[in-house]
Amino acid sequence: MVVEHTVKAFDEDITRLRGLIAEMGGLAEVAIQEAMQALVTGDEELAAAVVKRDKKLDKLESEVDELAVRVIALRAPMADDLREIIAALKIAGVVERIGDYAKNIAKRVGRIEGRHRFEPLTLLPAMGEVAAEMVHDVLTSFAARDPVMAREVIRTDDKVDAFYDSIFRNLVSHMVENPATISSAAQLLFIARNIERIGDHATNVAEMVHYAATGQYPPDEHDGRD
Amino acid sequence: MVVEHTVKAFDEDITRLRGLIAEMGGLAEVAIQEAMQALVTGDEELAAAVVKRDKKLDKLESEVDELAVRVIALRAPMADDLREIIAALKIAGVVERIGDYAKNIAKRVGRIEGRHRFEPLTLLPAMGEVAAEMVHDVLTSFAARDPVMAREVIRTDDKVDAFYDSIFRNLVSHMVENPATISSAAQLLFIARNIERIGDHATNVAEMVHYAATGQYPPDEHDGRD
Repeated sequence: MVVEHTVKAFDEDITRLRGLIAEMGGLAEVAIQEAMQALVTGDEELAAAVVKRDKKLDKLESEVDELAVRVIALRAPMADDLREIIAALKIAGVVERIGDYAKNIAKRVGRIEGRHRFEPLTLLPAMGEVAAEMVHDVLTSFAARDPVMAREVIRTDDKVDAFYDSIFRNLVSHMVENPATISSAAQLLFIARNIERIGDHATNVAEMVHYAATGQYPPDEHDGRD
Repeated sequence: MVVEHTVKAFDEDITRLRGLIAEMGGLAEVAIQEAMQALVTGDEELAAAVVKRDKKLDKLESEVDELAVRVIALRAPMADDLREIIAALKIAGVVERIGDYAKNIAKRVGRIEGRHRFEPLTLLPAMGEVAAEMVHDVLTSFAARDPVMAREVIRTDDKVDAFYDSIFRNLVSHMVENPATISSAAQLLFIARNIERIGDHATNVAEMVHYAATGQYPPDEHDGRD
């Protein structure tokens, strides 16, 4: 009975750990979407809300750290379970950082003048949507221990990179032709770079999920990275 | 006496953990430098050596994971010490990924034709040097628990970003003017992006070092990110 009790308590801990990671993923996804919405509509109040809500992600990361440490210390988990707990610790760190990029995008919303003049303002939300989907899918793959889905996410990063290249070229041409708008264009460039980094970090999480689920890193099928 | 013995064993574990992280940092730094050297000289043997040596980083990351787990489970460390161990776990994950980028650069060395025609081949090594220095400095800051140095690293990332933008523009112009070289130019673009990501990940580590040393994330002084 004691063993059974311990196993049950352990399962509850793991479920709670997964729940916290899922919650972090949900918050990060919404942060990306709302930051992009604030950017497109110029809604500075929404942008401020995104910045404010980022603290919640920091708090959740600390909760994941604490719970993971407690599980390791009290339950002495073996092989597969331990690999999942370590993955949770590392994934929480990366998702917190994804939230930072969304916050950074939100902070730039108020610094863009004459937003209707920029063509990338139609491309950026599409790029943000793909990145937000990557974050969503990679955390679903973690919850489901699904390495195939994790590899899908890794492949999707190529799309984000293609968006970035296209937006970069477009903005550079725009700067050359309209030197007066350089400072706003630079803000958009930083925003595109933040989204590109979100995609890269989601890819990073996907590799961790693959490793936690299979004990192996995914094969090198993604040309942009590895 | 028992307590003293435990404290000593704990200090030894922490020292060993720091040593492993320092070793990972050293390997990652050399991997970046040698990948860039292989790129500039077209030395495919050196490039292959860089690719092969990356396995060592994966192995060291596993060692960090194992040791960190053992310390948490056996020594039940408190507050500051626990924060450092969690930081070590997360930092090991990021440094392993920095190694992946260096490996990815090395893999591209053999795919570039007519290397003397590309102006970025003079800029890329300088960019790689700054990124390798960031990796070196951020791991020194971890070993020394030096948050001021960690913030220096965060600021240096602006230089890497500026290199990236300059190289990107240069390569795009080159592609437009010399369509026959597009495929080699694209390889150089991926290489520049990998270095940019190394800088971003070193920045990420710097934030973790700052947090581990002070319990707080660094203030938002770095415009490119947060």
